[in-house]
Amino acid sequence: MAGNSFGTLFRITTFGESHGPYIGVVIDGCYPGVKLNTEAIALELSKRRPGQSELTTARKEDDLPEIISGLYDGKTTGAPLTILIRNIDQRPADYNSLQHTYRPSHADFTYQAKYGIRDHRGSGRASARETAARVAAGAVALQLLEARGIAVHAYVSKIGDEAIPEAAYPVNLSLIENNTVRCPHEATAAAMQKLIADCKEQGDTLGGVINGLIQFLPPGLGEPVFDKFHARLGYAMLGINAVKGFEIGSGFDGVAQKGSQQNDVFSYSPDGKVTTLTNHSGGVQGGITNGMDVTFRVAFKPVSTLMKSQKSIDMDGNEVVLHPGGRHDVCVVPRAVPIVRAMAAITALDFVMQQDALNGNS
Amino acid sequence: MAGNSFGTLFRITTFGESHGPYIGVVIDGCYPGVKLNTEAIALELSKRRPGQSELTTARKEDDLPEIISGLYDGKTTGAPLTILIRNIDQRPADYNSLQHTYRPSHADFTYQAKYGIRDHRGSGRASARETAARVAAGAVALQLLEARGIAVHAYVSKIGDEAIPEAAYPVNLSLIENNTVRCPHEATAAAMQKLIADCKEQGDTLGGVINGLIQFLPPGLGEPVFDKFHARLGYAMLGINAVKGFEIGSGFDGVAQKGSQQNDVFSYSPDGKVTTLTNHSGGVQGGITNGMDVTFRVAFKPVSTLMKSQKSIDMDGNEVVLHPGGRHDVCVVPRAVPIVRAMAAITALDFVMQQDALNGNS
Amino acid sequence: MAGNSFGTLFRITTFGESHGPYIGVVIDGCYPGVKLNTEAIALELSKRRPGQSELTTARKEDDLPEIISGLYDGKTTGAPLTILIRNIDQRPADYNSLQHTYRPSHADFTYQAKYGIRDHRGSGRASARETAARVAAGAVALQLLEARGIAVHAYVSKIGDEAIPEAAYPVNLSLIENNTVRCPHEATAAAMQKLIADCKEQGDTLGGVINGLIQFLPPGLGEPVFDKFHARLGYAMLGINAVKGFEIGSGFDGVAQKGSQQNDVFSYSPDGKVTTLTNHSGGVQGGITNGMDVTFRVAFKPVSTLMKSQKSIDMDGNEVVLHPGGRHDVCVVPRAVPIVRAMAAITALDFVMQQDALNGNS
Amino acid sequence: MAGNSFGTLFRITTFGESHGPYIGVVIDGCYPGVKLNTEAIALELSKRRPGQSELTTARKEDDLPEIISGLYDGKTTGAPLTILIRNIDQRPADYNSLQHTYRPSHADFTYQAKYGIRDHRGSGRASARETAARVAAGAVALQLLEARGIAVHAYVSKIGDEAIPEAAYPVNLSLIENNTVRCPHEATAAAMQKLIADCKEQGDTLGGVINGLIQFLPPGLGEPVFDKFHARLGYAMLGINAVKGFEIGSGFDGVAQKGSQQNDVFSYSPDGKVTTLTNHSGGVQGGITNGMDVTFRVAFKPVSTLMKSQKSIDMDGNEVVLHPGGRHDVCVVPRAVPIVRAMAAITALDFVMQQDALNGNS
Repeated sequence: MAGNSFGTLFRITTFGESHGPYIGVVIDGCYPGVKLNTEAIALELSKRRPGQSELTTARKEDDLPEIISGLYDGKTTGAPLTILIRNIDQRPADYNSLQHTYRPSHADFTYQAKYGIRDHRGSGRASARETAARVAAGAVALQLLEARGIAVHAYVSKIGDEAIPEAAYPVNLSLIENNTVRCPHEATAAAMQKLIADCKEQGDTLGGVINGLIQFLPPGLGEPVFDKFHARLGYAMLGINAVKGFEIGSGFDGVAQKGSQQNDVFSYSPDGKVTTLTNHSGGVQGGITNGMDVTFRVAFKPVSTLMKSQKSIDMDGNEVVLHPGGRHDVCVVPRAVPIVRAMAAITALDFVMQQDALNGNS
Repeated sequence: MAGNSFGTLFRITTFGESHGPYIGVVIDGCYPGVKLNTEAIALELSKRRPGQSELTTARKEDDLPEIISGLYDGKTTGAPLTILIRNIDQRPADYNSLQHTYRPSHADFTYQAKYGIRDHRGSGRASARETAARVAAGAVALQLLEARGIAVHAYVSKIGDEAIPEAAYPVNLSLIENNTVRCPHEATAAAMQKLIADCKEQGDTLGGVINGLIQFLPPGLGEPVFDKFHARLGYAMLGINAVKGFEIGSGFDGVAQKGSQQNDVFSYSPDGKVTTLTNHSGGVQGGITNGMDVTFRVAFKPVSTLMKSQKSIDMDGNEVVLHPGGRHDVCVVPRAVPIVRAMAAITALDFVMQQDALNGNS
Repeated sequence: MAGNSFGTLFRITTFGESHGPYIGVVIDGCYPGVKLNTEAIALELSKRRPGQSELTTARKEDDLPEIISGLYDGKTTGAPLTILIRNIDQRPADYNSLQHTYRPSHADFTYQAKYGIRDHRGSGRASARETAARVAAGAVALQLLEARGIAVHAYVSKIGDEAIPEAAYPVNLSLIENNTVRCPHEATAAAMQKLIADCKEQGDTLGGVINGLIQFLPPGLGEPVFDKFHARLGYAMLGINAVKGFEIGSGFDGVAQKGSQQNDVFSYSPDGKVTTLTNHSGGVQGGITNGMDVTFRVAFKPVSTLMKSQKSIDMDGNEVVLHPGGRHDVCVVPRAVPIVRAMAAITALDFVMQQDALNGNS
Repeated sequence: MAGNSFGTLFRITTFGESHGPYIGVVIDGCYPGVKLNTEAIALELSKRRPGQSELTTARKEDDLPEIISGLYDGKTTGAPLTILIRNIDQRPADYNSLQHTYRPSHADFTYQAKYGIRDHRGSGRASARETAARVAAGAVALQLLEARGIAVHAYVSKIGDEAIPEAAYPVNLSLIENNTVRCPHEATAAAMQKLIADCKEQGDTLGGVINGLIQFLPPGLGEPVFDKFHARLGYAMLGINAVKGFEIGSGFDGVAQKGSQQNDVFSYSPDGKVTTLTNHSGGVQGGITNGMDVTFRVAFKPVSTLMKSQKSIDMDGNEVVLHPGGRHDVCVVPRAVPIVRAMAAITALDFVMQQDALNGNS
């Protein structure tokens, strides 16, 4: 039931629904005395926002973060930071036709089964709008991590069957925001855009894969046994709407390799630091970071809401046909990039703080 | 730091190391008054045990669970069940040569980086021996779930590049224990056994994929936002040694499909129950179970300990060559089947209990 | 750092500060489908509000709860209930003179020591205003408990040295709201009122004791070892501003009695229910409720803000004299009654839900 | 259900029952690389042990801590420390007569009500024997705190109606272990011993008060709102068997004082440190430590097991008379001194670690 909170020391609690006046987030564990860049928070929110390009939905949500506690004179006070984001343009009436219907692969039926009651307007807590609160919190975590020299990146590596070719790795991370699909490989980005345009014609939708990268983490983060670094990271990612898979390092592909191929051989760098010649482990060994980049991949299924008719059922035992209405994204994966980045930052910062506690300050 | 515990209401805390006298587990949240089958616990432990066949390591660990609290007259009392498992045949001296060396892709370096000190004997908490405690706890969870009509299965679907062909699904779950690789498809099992034998010749190791299946779960389990059913399940799986990936339903493969292909169309079964015609969702929609089978896949990397020489480094800044010693598994995936099953059972039971609390009993 | 949340299954997270636009609370674990009485929430808030009578401060805070999520058509949806309470009439400038001063027995110095920075306007999270969020959440818990037949009461039993005489127990709980001091014994209430009036003349302040009573709890609530019913209850009470002591049953007075006097002799009631002839245990034995009333007492120190001059220090190494300003309560204890009631309700409901989970619903 | 664990970063999980082979504790969050003094652990255990003097019970429990994980070459490894304590001399048969009886003010009835089943042998988890595990864990915490310059003391200040006179404060802490009642005021100690001897004649039992003192804590520990330093401390104390009350600083007595008497006036010490002229706050203001001694008091009720006959009931609806059997303590309060000390140390260390995490180590 504590499912609305995430984290141990750096801990977020999100609240609100898409059809109330606000959604928001309470952030525990902010370092005190840090100058907060609120524009950077707004920027991350704008990346998640619908209507960024003709490729995404036309619904307009101008997400401006309103910090109502934990900040004094532009600096964090150590008290929990509370951020409100106003919901504008909510139109509950749009959903009236769905009151008695279970949309395929949505949370309509499962919420009804769980609670015996359901707020059909905008899916309640299942709405992707809730993720804006995570993005806002993540934008704070990104700043606190940056002060410790840690960087977090995320980008789209695959949409439908269009993927960045193996040979193009490592990608140039500075290109991520150069196109609307947030793919740092231009040729692939163009192919993805065409795929999306074609799919829009068909009234269908597309899934994709987001790659994440955490850089400059110190070795030693993560806990043995259940709270392995990548176990918490996977937990964070699998909690994002529409995510159906997570892998670290070589992941599922590594299965087909032999141990002698997979093992990352250790070496000393010229400055005497321990490093590995390859990074199949994805920066985590035995559940603990080894100082190499943490690399991971997150699979998103295609959006369930189609712009063409679908068969379904209603609550009263009838088969029905759902007709498309409103305007919806063909592919939300580019908009999910800031969410992946946010949750990775929150997870990493929590482990940084736990390690500081273990180290003591003597 | 609470990384040794897992779960909210049904909650396990494992303890011990491979080279102390005991490992064990404390289990909170056992229903009281349940007749416990201790042979069933021993049976699950025997499936994880090394030396089950010529294919696995010859080291012998006779894992007999000793229940030291929470049981009275064969029945659970509601007090925490504590299970001890004695470590026999530990030989710390075997590890002396490793005292100053970082083995590739092991936890040697990362533990040293984390703690500044390291128990080189058998890897301490990073040892796979710790998972015996999870298996014992899972065997208890399996019994409590069974009393509510819920079943959990796991089997090997892939080793190296040998996988059960798509056309062979759904597999016959009753065949899982018919062969040493725990693959319920005989032809594939034979190919896997051959692959393992060949790999052993080469002194190399193999990874694989384990498929999990939770049957007869009621719809409505899981929590919105962070504690989605599959997010907790993935968290549980990614905490298992050597796991590098997790997916539910169509997972990474689903990415290449369109929404119209992925969506699971609802239908009413003859007895009026809501069902879906396909199960690409893997039994979870919006993070909540929909009453269909929960299906998931877990990727295991090949074992890091090879039976051939490997380059590495020691703690003192030198490059070294590691020579193989002792006898080690070529492929641990078959022995990980009971661990996957155990963690799935623990996760499911925890959600069952949370849902009971939400329902109240009025 | 998770110090802004309380509870396991019924779990509240409060947020906001007295000088931002809102304070609020997120409530996890509300039973779904419950018709919520929002006027009852407003009523509890009005009991905590300043300016209720000439005895309390003239500052006006009209606390109207605004439920922004978790409610649909007047019923709880099972999603987290979020309640906002607008701060009106905040005047940060009033606090300017305190920017560099540590007021005696306030949180000024300790917050500065903890965070190295301090929001001097209204004490930030240390402000008693935060407790309004707890009262709102408690008012929800009270309604959910009521549906299960459980009642929670609180009243003032002592202010300064004026206490309800032993002979007047058990008090008539229906009289609690009959006077401004919330003391259900009229003669004592009158004496308390006179004491407060006299103390006001002197510019001084008064502490007191609040008695709590939880009725009709089933036996069996609470957990062995650390989460004993009264341990969680004491934890809840000691988290309320200005509380310095907690006792259950005979508490500190019971120390002077012999075991033969303290022991509560069991008996069967005419309808075969187990009961005790006395209730020195305060309804809890071995940490678990026994079905008798849970009775407890909470000690509040006198308010630290005086209406007369006090010596103190500033941040720059100087001794200073603080002069009174604004209007403050002589005694906040009557206004703390709804807070005690709220936290008792939240604690009790959490245990009710945990017990339902343990019972299963088979 | 997680009631067997306590703490966030320094976190203990106790297990076992008085009539199994072992009780024990798992300790998460030990600083790595610390040389552990196991004799100091045994010493604390010996203080809790029955049969220390003719004043306490003759039952013999030789409590030797066996550390089975987390220690390598005498130093902590950062892995969870697991300590087993063997139960010797358990005689379940002694309890056979109690199988169907509810002893007054014991946990017999409440456990039966909670679980529907009950292990009558030695009270299961309700047995005071479980507290040995807390003492062992506390002895570890004491050593880790000592390395940071923090000291924790506890002593008996009152038994029955014999209390250390006000004028004798502050007491000489070095005298605590000078007598069997652990009261550092000789005249009072002698009176207490006489009181116990007299009470033994009568077959009756006595309660008492233990005072605790945490010295040299830095200012800034504790969290606002629910996890105030003294709220967690009270929670820790109220979880100890037979505890019915907790207060910090002036506690319940402070209620009768005016604000001008209670307020602790700040001052600068000669070396420029902030200090207070009095310490009515007990070292905590606004829930956060202020650098003064943390002083608290814990009330223990008299033991429920008498050496004279008592009326009670059995499970079958009958009234019965209980006859005394075995040998029991007249007053357990002196033996509870190490438990209070242990839980105070565990609580303090957890807050120290949380504060280190908030401070970061940059």
